[in-house]
Amino acid sequence: MVGHAFMGRAHSQAWRSVGPFFGPPLTPVMAALAGRDAVRAAAAARTLGWASSEGDWKQLLHRDDVQIVDICTPGDTHAEIAVAALDAGKHVLCEKPLANSSAEAEAMVAAAERARAKGVRSMVGFNYRRVPAVTLARDLVADGRIGTVRHVRAQYLQDWLTDPEAPFSWRLDRDRAGTGALGDIGAHIIDTAQFVTGHRLVGVSAVMDTFVPERPKPGGGTAAVTVDDAALFIGRTDGGALASFEATRMATGRKNALRIEVSGSSGALSFDLEAMNELWFYDGTEDAETAGFRRIVVTEPVHTYARQWWPPGHLLGYEHTFTHQAADLLTAIAGGTDPSPSFADGLRVQRVLDAVAASAASGAWADVEGSL
Amino acid sequence: MVGHAFMGRAHSQAWRSVGPFFGPPLTPVMAALAGRDAVRAAAAARTLGWASSEGDWKQLLHRDDVQIVDICTPGDTHAEIAVAALDAGKHVLCEKPLANSSAEAEAMVAAAERARAKGVRSMVGFNYRRVPAVTLARDLVADGRIGTVRHVRAQYLQDWLTDPEAPFSWRLDRDRAGTGALGDIGAHIIDTAQFVTGHRLVGVSAVMDTFVPERPKPGGGTAAVTVDDAALFIGRTDGGALASFEATRMATGRKNALRIEVSGSSGALSFDLEAMNELWFYDGTEDAETAGFRRIVVTEPVHTYARQWWPPGHLLGYEHTFTHQAADLLTAIAGGTDPSPSFADGLRVQRVLDAVAASAASGAWADVEGSL
Amino acid sequence: MVGHAFMGRAHSQAWRSVGPFFGPPLTPVMAALAGRDAVRAAAAARTLGWASSEGDWKQLLHRDDVQIVDICTPGDTHAEIAVAALDAGKHVLCEKPLANSSAEAEAMVAAAERARAKGVRSMVGFNYRRVPAVTLARDLVADGRIGTVRHVRAQYLQDWLTDPEAPFSWRLDRDRAGTGALGDIGAHIIDTAQFVTGHRLVGVSAVMDTFVPERPKPGGGTAAVTVDDAALFIGRTDGGALASFEATRMATGRKNALRIEVSGSSGALSFDLEAMNELWFYDGTEDAETAGFRRIVVTEPVHTYARQWWPPGHLLGYEHTFTHQAADLLTAIAGGTDPSPSFADGLRVQRVLDAVAASAASGAWADVEGSL
Amino acid sequence: MVGHAFMGRAHSQAWRSVGPFFGPPLTPVMAALAGRDAVRAAAAARTLGWASSEGDWKQLLHRDDVQIVDICTPGDTHAEIAVAALDAGKHVLCEKPLANSSAEAEAMVAAAERARAKGVRSMVGFNYRRVPAVTLARDLVADGRIGTVRHVRAQYLQDWLTDPEAPFSWRLDRDRAGTGALGDIGAHIIDTAQFVTGHRLVGVSAVMDTFVPERPKPGGGTAAVTVDDAALFIGRTDGGALASFEATRMATGRKNALRIEVSGSSGALSFDLEAMNELWFYDGTEDAETAGFRRIVVTEPVHTYARQWWPPGHLLGYEHTFTHQAADLLTAIAGGTDPSPSFADGLRVQRVLDAVAASAASGAWADVEGSL
Repeated sequence: MVGHAFMGRAHSQAWRSVGPFFGPPLTPVMAALAGRDAVRAAAAARTLGWASSEGDWKQLLHRDDVQIVDICTPGDTHAEIAVAALDAGKHVLCEKPLANSSAEAEAMVAAAERARAKGVRSMVGFNYRRVPAVTLARDLVADGRIGTVRHVRAQYLQDWLTDPEAPFSWRLDRDRAGTGALGDIGAHIIDTAQFVTGHRLVGVSAVMDTFVPERPKPGGGTAAVTVDDAALFIGRTDGGALASFEATRMATGRKNALRIEVSGSSGALSFDLEAMNELWFYDGTEDAETAGFRRIVVTEPVHTYARQWWPPGHLLGYEHTFTHQAADLLTAIAGGTDPSPSFADGLRVQRVLDAVAASAASGAWADVEGSL
Repeated sequence: MVGHAFMGRAHSQAWRSVGPFFGPPLTPVMAALAGRDAVRAAAAARTLGWASSEGDWKQLLHRDDVQIVDICTPGDTHAEIAVAALDAGKHVLCEKPLANSSAEAEAMVAAAERARAKGVRSMVGFNYRRVPAVTLARDLVADGRIGTVRHVRAQYLQDWLTDPEAPFSWRLDRDRAGTGALGDIGAHIIDTAQFVTGHRLVGVSAVMDTFVPERPKPGGGTAAVTVDDAALFIGRTDGGALASFEATRMATGRKNALRIEVSGSSGALSFDLEAMNELWFYDGTEDAETAGFRRIVVTEPVHTYARQWWPPGHLLGYEHTFTHQAADLLTAIAGGTDPSPSFADGLRVQRVLDAVAASAASGAWADVEGSL
Repeated sequence: MVGHAFMGRAHSQAWRSVGPFFGPPLTPVMAALAGRDAVRAAAAARTLGWASSEGDWKQLLHRDDVQIVDICTPGDTHAEIAVAALDAGKHVLCEKPLANSSAEAEAMVAAAERARAKGVRSMVGFNYRRVPAVTLARDLVADGRIGTVRHVRAQYLQDWLTDPEAPFSWRLDRDRAGTGALGDIGAHIIDTAQFVTGHRLVGVSAVMDTFVPERPKPGGGTAAVTVDDAALFIGRTDGGALASFEATRMATGRKNALRIEVSGSSGALSFDLEAMNELWFYDGTEDAETAGFRRIVVTEPVHTYARQWWPPGHLLGYEHTFTHQAADLLTAIAGGTDPSPSFADGLRVQRVLDAVAASAASGAWADVEGSL
Repeated sequence: MVGHAFMGRAHSQAWRSVGPFFGPPLTPVMAALAGRDAVRAAAAARTLGWASSEGDWKQLLHRDDVQIVDICTPGDTHAEIAVAALDAGKHVLCEKPLANSSAEAEAMVAAAERARAKGVRSMVGFNYRRVPAVTLARDLVADGRIGTVRHVRAQYLQDWLTDPEAPFSWRLDRDRAGTGALGDIGAHIIDTAQFVTGHRLVGVSAVMDTFVPERPKPGGGTAAVTVDDAALFIGRTDGGALASFEATRMATGRKNALRIEVSGSSGALSFDLEAMNELWFYDGTEDAETAGFRRIVVTEPVHTYARQWWPPGHLLGYEHTFTHQAADLLTAIAGGTDPSPSFADGLRVQRVLDAVAASAASGAWADVEGSL
């Protein structure tokens, strides 16, 4: 694994938990953790349960005991590491967003294609696809339970930048992060919306803003915020739906509210990550007397992923999604199939991000490249 | 109408609204309002839209332009007025609780029986039966949609006595009110539970308490609170269900939360008067994948009462229940049928109240008289 | 009053109820109801409680017993009636949207100005401003309780056109209704957003669509739907906030969900008309340990409008907003002040509607005329 | 660890996770798993990540590499194992309920006292105390944020026995389980209520029932259900509060709804385990204009336990409570202090269970032994 911050902790817990709960066909061994600083990487390896550590991720590519490279670093490093790892014959799990630009993402997709020909697999970490309630939403749409999708309303609301004194970090630096709310959390709602509906965005109109343009640096002084605090856009999908999206770090009081509501011609679905074990489903074919949005607690033995854990009504948390992701990756590698979401899926999201940024800059509708 | 306080205002609005919205077979004329004080009654008549007023309710019985006597006074006067009115050949609508004791209630039932033989009708004002969501709940139980009822959990939570400085009033005086939370709001949940389930309580075990034994009088000085602030009880029904009840004026933050949840062998229902346009329904026969409590917004054209008002999603409020009550009473009178709930239903509730008080006093299980 | 359909019924109930509950300085007399068809107008007058009727609204202007003209007709007739009534010296209450075009609305504003000079008052019927929870939201923003407004997310979701067999009506005809979801319900969220935040929209980018282009006529045959089923737009306000709006009649399962959420620099508010007695408030100045969105049940004696009705926790319904509107209009007329919202407020909303339509047609950002 | 069923899986995940997330002063090593069947124990050890296994729990007491014995077996074995382990100088974590009778529990408390004198620690596994929202509830009550506690309403609602064809298991056998819903889930709400309020139940009145008296055995045939499906009771606390409790496995549609609401003289709290990351708090000292139940998402850095995991708004799940328990146990052992809840706390719950059963049998109020 490369990186040992927030995502590194989450992925470590996944690798540790996937065996006991999913009994995957391949048993993961937590061989080595790489970081930019050898001392800090070694300490993190001890804390997070990795057998060894490296001060340079390139060392992982030379080790025979490393078959999967799990990339948990900021977006500006994804392309270099992923391409090198795939070319070295290592399976790759890469955090989202896939890259900081479509050009990088295209190079990664090309590397993934080359690797695939040799049986080497790649996957991008849109972990929220594997919230059981989101998986169920996708299944219900695919089964026709809400009819033709007409509307998507998606929001990812956080508030950690509401305070002007919240400190500067790499996530606020365009060179490291690419974009702000857009790429960090907007990428999640774009992917989730496309995953659940099966539609792709073909055009968007957007507005972005930075409400607090300068912030204190942890070590003193200030730094300019060069990314967006918030991005809003509307769009059309290839399936004829109208969609609205909002990604913001300024939604006071909303901590991690990824919300998506999908209206179809005969039903609807609603989800909020702050109540992630629930899916709300409206079945428009029911009698008017008793029709209503149902709160499904997605913890039943029939529910994908949830069935592996606890009895009904015993909730899952945030990091379980990473365990589900690990289980599916291991299953795909063992079975010689391609895991999903692919790097191509990651590129598709990247192109929407590009269109959003372009539209916000021009004030006009922007087509999503490659969508038609 | 007799009385012009809280209930008088609500009933006046009902008599005024029932024509335009329900087009009942009989058109009510708001002929006369009676109160103990002629001057105040006259003022109230002007405000509330009554054509004339009387300083003594007995005068109403002599007036030919009065066919219905609507009793909105404290419970200690119900029996006298109702019996006299019925014996005078006036139809009677009497606020709940029917009386302050079972003895009084029995006399009223006897008067109702006598009157009935002459085509004179009587009804007790358990208005919450006519919340559309409660009516729907009753219908779903009656249609077998939740199977055999096994559990009732009912609460009526208010908080207007939380503050020890909240003033003394007739509602805290045993001589006027009979009991406190028990008869005022406990009566509602008893009736609602029996109405929705079709079961009757056969035995109870109870505890009651007065947390603030003395309160300031509006004019100065203090008075002893001689009724209960809260009454809790558990019980068994004639249908084999277990039930729990709580009526309290000390549930800080709950303003008017009449909540009832009914668990059946194949489904369940849940209601909260603080969200009175909604009924939650769990259909246990659905697939486990999509089963969940549904939030039914009870404002559709198929919903009883609601259909008379506005398009779907346009909410009804508290006083609409009194209009529904008035409509049904007028329809029954015109059709020569008995309106429901009857005085006998009111007596049935009174007997549960008696059993609760007896059990709270004795510390032992108490049977409900007449229930077996 | 002119018109006796949905709005006519709602306004009639308001004129009937405002006296007993608000004791306004002027007591309304329900003198005359006008409709296009004299026979149907007469029948409606009887049902709705009006003393007389007219087959032509122009007759109202000649009657001395008519001081207020309440316009409850489709939008294409508003301008003619309102201008004539104001010029005839009658106070005017006009349903929203003020008109079907900004040109008409401008003429109405001019008439209102002329009338105002003579002490004749005018008001446009954005009744949702007078939901107690919406009034409270406005008050909290004005009092600085959420700091600087940064985000508005507003939706008005209905589903009565989800079914392709839902019949054609005047609301689907551009000549009568002007626009579809946009003017009918989009106008409400635009006004509500501007009212609550005190900001004005200065520019928008929009998309509109008609999912079902042809519908059965009630008498047989089909008709082309010439208005939008749904309109989505994003915008900027003069106060620097980013806003998103969605108005749709295709949100399956949502019956009348006017939702608005406002994020400020130190707090946030959230409201849903399907739970119209509640306002959710997040106070960002609270300790992190106990900060959270509060569900305020807006039925306390301190709450504007609500205090006139019932004790805490006893809910109000949809039509109460019209009674509040009537009370404020009567108070303004009696006090010789201008009621709010004014025709100028109505024009302001109309200009946003125009910008939305223009942007949807052009695919580019559109400025709101007169906003800068 | 002894036992490898549901609780064994949960505890294993806790021992595995406590190191990386809590960095406890002692690092647990998952040395040995014991079960009644050596072959099945060995398989479970491999799956759950234990280094070795034993076919007899007594072997654990002879192993030097075992310092803590974690008892995850049915209640009828708790006393024997716990007493032996403590007397052998092993620290003990014992699942709830502590025992199947007060006599057994008293012997365990005595053993715990003996062991304590030698620095050997014991703890009973009321894991729900360590849901961050429940811990916060306790803290708020202790800090006086809701004033004097007047009401507790506690429910633990499950529905896995609703279906009469749900199979027989040891949990339905009085000899193994002691009681049914009462001891299994009723014990949780009794402990949670006492923990949060700081009050102890002093007397109860109860009713219990078994709705489905016979069930199919997994291997064929049927078995008599000798425990309760549901237990309801009301009670008084030593602090003068009135309380109601319901534990049932027949609450159709409720999967794991441990709900507790506490009303105090100046505030209130509400919690539901089906939304376990949320605590609802009503602060009665707020202005009436904005007072309301707040939904606190208990995932902030100031929140005990939650701070160890993820950023705000990233939810925790069911098994996290066991990790919190493990962390606190290790900290107590390392610090030479007594962990909480103690065996004496477990006995206290057991005595309430006894009083409930006695009252249900007698139909009269029953005092809780040792409570006065």
